[in-house]
Parts: sequence; structure tokens; C-alpha cells
Amino acid sequence: MFAQTPKPPYTAVIFTSTLSDDIEGYGEAAHEMERLAQLQDGYLGIESARDELGITVSYWRDERCAQKWKLQLEHAAVQRIGAKRWYGGYRVRIATVERDY
Amino acid sequence: MFAQTPKPPYTAVIFTSTLSDDIEGYGEAAHEMERLAQLQDGYLGIESARDELGITVSYWRDERCAQKWKLQLEHAAVQRIGAKRWYGGYRVRIATVERDY
Repeated sequence: MFAQTPKPPYTAVIFTSTLSDDIEGYGEAAHEMERLAQLQDGYLGIESARDELGITVSYWRDERCAQKWKLQLEHAAVQRIGAKRWYGGYRVRIATVERDY
Repeated sequence: MFAQTPKPPYTAVIFTSTLSDDIEGYGEAAHEMERLAQLQDGYLGIESARDELGITVSYWRDERCAQKWKLQLEHAAVQRIGAKRWYGGYRVRIATVERDY
């Protein structure tokens, strides 16, 4: 359940979102995206929780791997007509983890 | 609901946790900690979600402010006898946000 990340530094992509009222197909797609992430170069782990707000933090070897994943997500979202209708709003933050406990 | 963070860089503290079966007093304490964070120097915002896993990301002006907050949290946890019994497990990651969208 916790991502088993290595010694820092590594990269975190913090994705926070609210859902819209129209989430048909969202659950399957979210699941598929997590599966795809695991196949991606530099993948270290993912942690995810949702109540009113959804937070998904994915961890990557470096920023280059994180950026590649972000582009692939956007590509998948474009292919999947209307993926954006699932979200009420979202933020993406790319960060370097420098310390962990 | 989304933290209104400024232009990067700034600091993110990613706290992920599972709860134990004994969470008496947890809800009030979590609420109080969020209230205290807002009074702290360098506070930028907080985002939080929980289902099986809980993820709280707090945002700070710089790492010094984040570290001060972490010390204050630990201090409060020690004062509050047995605060640790609430958690099944947890991870704390301190990261520098370099980009956001």
C-alpha cells in the first residue's frame, strides 16, 4: 500500500483532483493507468487516496521519467475522448523528494 | 479544496498513513493539526484525502518552514500520549516542487 521508494533523491508527481458528476468509465481507466505506470521506465511506486478530493502520488527515478509518464498520460487522455469530463478540477505538481522518514 | 500555492519552487511535505483499529481522538486531533498548520510561518496550503490509505500534502514556503512544522507535529504527538497508536504505519517525504500545472 505504501510505495517502497529507494533512498532520495527521486521524483514525485502529486496529482490532486476533484471528480465531476459524470464519471462513467473513470474507475476502469484509473485502474488501467496505474497498471501502465508500473510498466514504465523509472517507475518506483504509487500511492492513492480519494474522498472529496483525490490525491495520487507517483514516484519516479528522476524528472525525465516523470515527464515521460506525464506525456503518456496526456496522450492517453486525448485518445480517450472526453476523459477530461471526469474531473471537476485538477493540479499536477512535479517535485524532487530530498528526505524521507 | 485545492491548495492555492504560488509559483514554484516551494516545499511539499507528503504524509501517507494507514490507521490502526484504535482511532479514538484521531479526528479532533487531525482537525486541530490542520488549524495549527495555518497559523505557522511559511504555510501555503494543505490537501488531504483518505480511504484505505490517507495522504496529506502540506505546502510550505521553504524547507526550513516545513522542518519547523515537522518538529512541532512531533512535539504535539509526544504531548498527546499515545498519538502513535492511531497509525498502522506512515511515511513522511519532504520534497521541493519545481513545476506545477
